[in-house]
Amino acid sequence: MTDLHRLIENFLVDYAQCLDDGRFAEWPGFFDPAHCRYEILSRENVDLGLPAPILSCYSHGMLVDRVTMLVKQTLTYRPMYLRRQITNVRVRLAGADMAVVRANLVVYQSDMEGVSSLYMVGRSEDEILVANERPLLRRKTIILDSFGVDTMLAVPL
Amino acid sequence: MTDLHRLIENFLVDYAQCLDDGRFAEWPGFFDPAHCRYEILSRENVDLGLPAPILSCYSHGMLVDRVTMLVKQTLTYRPMYLRRQITNVRVRLAGADMAVVRANLVVYQSDMEGVSSLYMVGRSEDEILVANERPLLRRKTIILDSFGVDTMLAVPL
Amino acid sequence: MTDLHRLIENFLVDYAQCLDDGRFAEWPGFFDPAHCRYEILSRENVDLGLPAPILSCYSHGMLVDRVTMLVKQTLTYRPMYLRRQITNVRVRLAGADMAVVRANLVVYQSDMEGVSSLYMVGRSEDEILVANERPLLRRKTIILDSFGVDTMLAVPL
Repeated sequence: MTDLHRLIENFLVDYAQCLDDGRFAEWPGFFDPAHCRYEILSRENVDLGLPAPILSCYSHGMLVDRVTMLVKQTLTYRPMYLRRQITNVRVRLAGADMAVVRANLVVYQSDMEGVSSLYMVGRSEDEILVANERPLLRRKTIILDSFGVDTMLAVPL
Repeated sequence: MTDLHRLIENFLVDYAQCLDDGRFAEWPGFFDPAHCRYEILSRENVDLGLPAPILSCYSHGMLVDRVTMLVKQTLTYRPMYLRRQITNVRVRLAGADMAVVRANLVVYQSDMEGVSSLYMVGRSEDEILVANERPLLRRKTIILDSFGVDTMLAVPL
Repeated sequence: MTDLHRLIENFLVDYAQCLDDGRFAEWPGFFDPAHCRYEILSRENVDLGLPAPILSCYSHGMLVDRVTMLVKQTLTYRPMYLRRQITNVRVRLAGADMAVVRANLVVYQSDMEGVSSLYMVGRSEDEILVANERPLLRRKTIILDSFGVDTMLAVPL
């Protein structure tokens, strides 16, 4: 492994581009099919030690289900362009083939009239399997500073 | 070339600092004098396959013209501080000496009273010649999620 | 030193995480105890060559004093979550063991109801001692594009 940080950062950027581009069918492919978890929590709950997530997918099949309506475009919601900024990436090895990664996440939305605004602010805490050439998410936890955004759960973060 | 990603990221940061600092006369120097193109498109048009740009400079001379009024300060416009955030940089080699680079771009404006706000959100897609020590832009395409910003075209992005 | 840029970027991210997490007692530890300076200036003043800072700490003891009220939680202020985005990091060596670093800084605030907004926009100019394994700040200067934020000085940037 020549540069773990670069490998991870490219992986996170590819993940964000996939979602920014609306290629939702590809999203589950970023997770380990054998064992994975995707959760969204509020920072308030995390700080108080309350573990209940706002949203949780704890199998690969649930991830596929999660985006089925988006892929088939049968879900009715106001279409918005989202743009995800991944910054402050910090990578630590935990064992021979697992990276524990923390990053900040800021997402902007732009409506069809081209008006942009802040959508959400938070951070991600990921466990990423780096045994093979292509990294795979074992666990992605997104912790929201902004938990008042009602459209938040329409598309993955 | 020891680290292409670092070379490119430093180049993009230098480009953004040049514009953030208002050193507009230096801006054309980031482009290949022999052959270059600078275009701004709306994401709406790109997604619909409509190639008409909002703004296009397709020679080095046009880039120099573009900033002449800014350099001479004869252009009348409300002065604003801009600050460009380059994130989600993804570098791919295309041939021996050409890098194809995608990045997200978020720009904030601050007026003379120190009030800051979101100015634009979008991405850049660049073709960067890396044959020499100093990279040079062959092509910079900026694709705007925010296309309602009327002051957008006063200064380069 | 295998990769100075990575060392510095990790250091800046750790600094931001420390403050984002509200671990204020750890903040002075990022500075060289023997000799350090922390200053906040407005961009307007910097551009006009006026050196008066909005805030200045010019010894390690002053940094400790600065956060004492925050650590003891005796300071009365409206609690807000802050999230710092460090981008556009540019590292240059100045002598054998000193790095001169410029970066952009954007901070978001989120209130206890989970409503997020832009808090400040600016840049940092740091002098970082890299003689030892752990970098240490000799000087951190934060230059604000946003100088109208009245709560700005409650917590360090």
